[in-house]
Amino acid sequence: MDTNDPPADGRPPTKRPTARGRPFSQRTEQAIIEATTGLLAERPLSEISLDDIATQARVSKASIYRRWPTKGTLAFDAFMVDFLDRQPLPNTGRLEDDLLATLRNWVSAVDRTATGRALKGLIAEVQRDPALADAWRERFIGPVRARHLLLTERAKSRGELPPGADADLLLDILFGPAYHRLLHAHLPLDESFVRGVVRAIGAAIDAGVF
Amino acid sequence: MDTNDPPADGRPPTKRPTARGRPFSQRTEQAIIEATTGLLAERPLSEISLDDIATQARVSKASIYRRWPTKGTLAFDAFMVDFLDRQPLPNTGRLEDDLLATLRNWVSAVDRTATGRALKGLIAEVQRDPALADAWRERFIGPVRARHLLLTERAKSRGELPPGADADLLLDILFGPAYHRLLHAHLPLDESFVRGVVRAIGAAIDAGVF
Repeated sequence: MDTNDPPADGRPPTKRPTARGRPFSQRTEQAIIEATTGLLAERPLSEISLDDIATQARVSKASIYRRWPTKGTLAFDAFMVDFLDRQPLPNTGRLEDDLLATLRNWVSAVDRTATGRALKGLIAEVQRDPALADAWRERFIGPVRARHLLLTERAKSRGELPPGADADLLLDILFGPAYHRLLHAHLPLDESFVRGVVRAIGAAIDAGVF
Repeated sequence: MDTNDPPADGRPPTKRPTARGRPFSQRTEQAIIEATTGLLAERPLSEISLDDIATQARVSKASIYRRWPTKGTLAFDAFMVDFLDRQPLPNTGRLEDDLLATLRNWVSAVDRTATGRALKGLIAEVQRDPALADAWRERFIGPVRARHLLLTERAKSRGELPPGADADLLLDILFGPAYHRLLHAHLPLDESFVRGVVRAIGAAIDAGVF
């Protein structure tokens, strides 16, 4: 079973290096992203300076500013790369199995992890910062949704979903309960929860709800 | 159709007045809650002082402090009263209709309303304040969930759900997608969304998922 996709899988394009095709530039960028991700796993963004990131990545602060105008935009990009890397898009040939693998990947990426804490922190910020809310929808929700829509598009082409199926509703029923438990922490994100949500969606598909 | 329940509907008991049975005390309390709710509809909590609330409620600041140790606890109580008041528990005699009315009530209470903005603000605060997170689960998620479990208990007694059904999973599939759209604002909380979510749950019930 191939659980990894080729790059053309809806993943948003990574930032292009300033000097085209120069591998050095890409390595620098990767080092900066990795340093940021590493530091964010240890402490909140408010306690991380650009000097810390530059030292950790062994680059100059100017190298960072050349690519990212603010610490926040860098943190957002680092989060995106980390978040997507932890969630390869499955391709099992059957929608219900794809949904099961997708939700399991999501839970293991965010449940009591630094990525999960970063995700909760970003969602909190989004509620108080309208500019971040726009960026969040355009650069996080949009690209992540575009990736997941590949799952439902494949299911449509296999005849598992009708051509006009409301895939957004299906994906909100998949992820909504999971975000709900992540944010409120009222009940565990366990395997029985994951299976129950996916079985409910399977039943709804069989009943022609979408 | 009776859409309102008697007081013994799982709604958490309101704060008892300090001097037992004194109607004056209850009126004072109600005036303070109403003043707070009114002010919160106009501006964020950070821009409201206890003096503003005391003036609006025509009480002394001491009267407020006697009941609520901080502005935050008062705002939380005011939010709870307002939030629950806007959502009478339906009792149609059929679970799917109860769920439909419940989700519709929730959407009209929070979609682009002051209550919805307060809810989003509180969820954001919960992500950064562990003490508030505990209070949130004990005093918001817990009591609200207890009310909604009355719907599934009635359904169990009518034989619409098996006795051991996972009602928490059912309720997270009902509310999770709705909170998801409220917090990310990526798609509308419209009637088609409400109906779709409830139909999916109906199909999952029929398939014995819960």
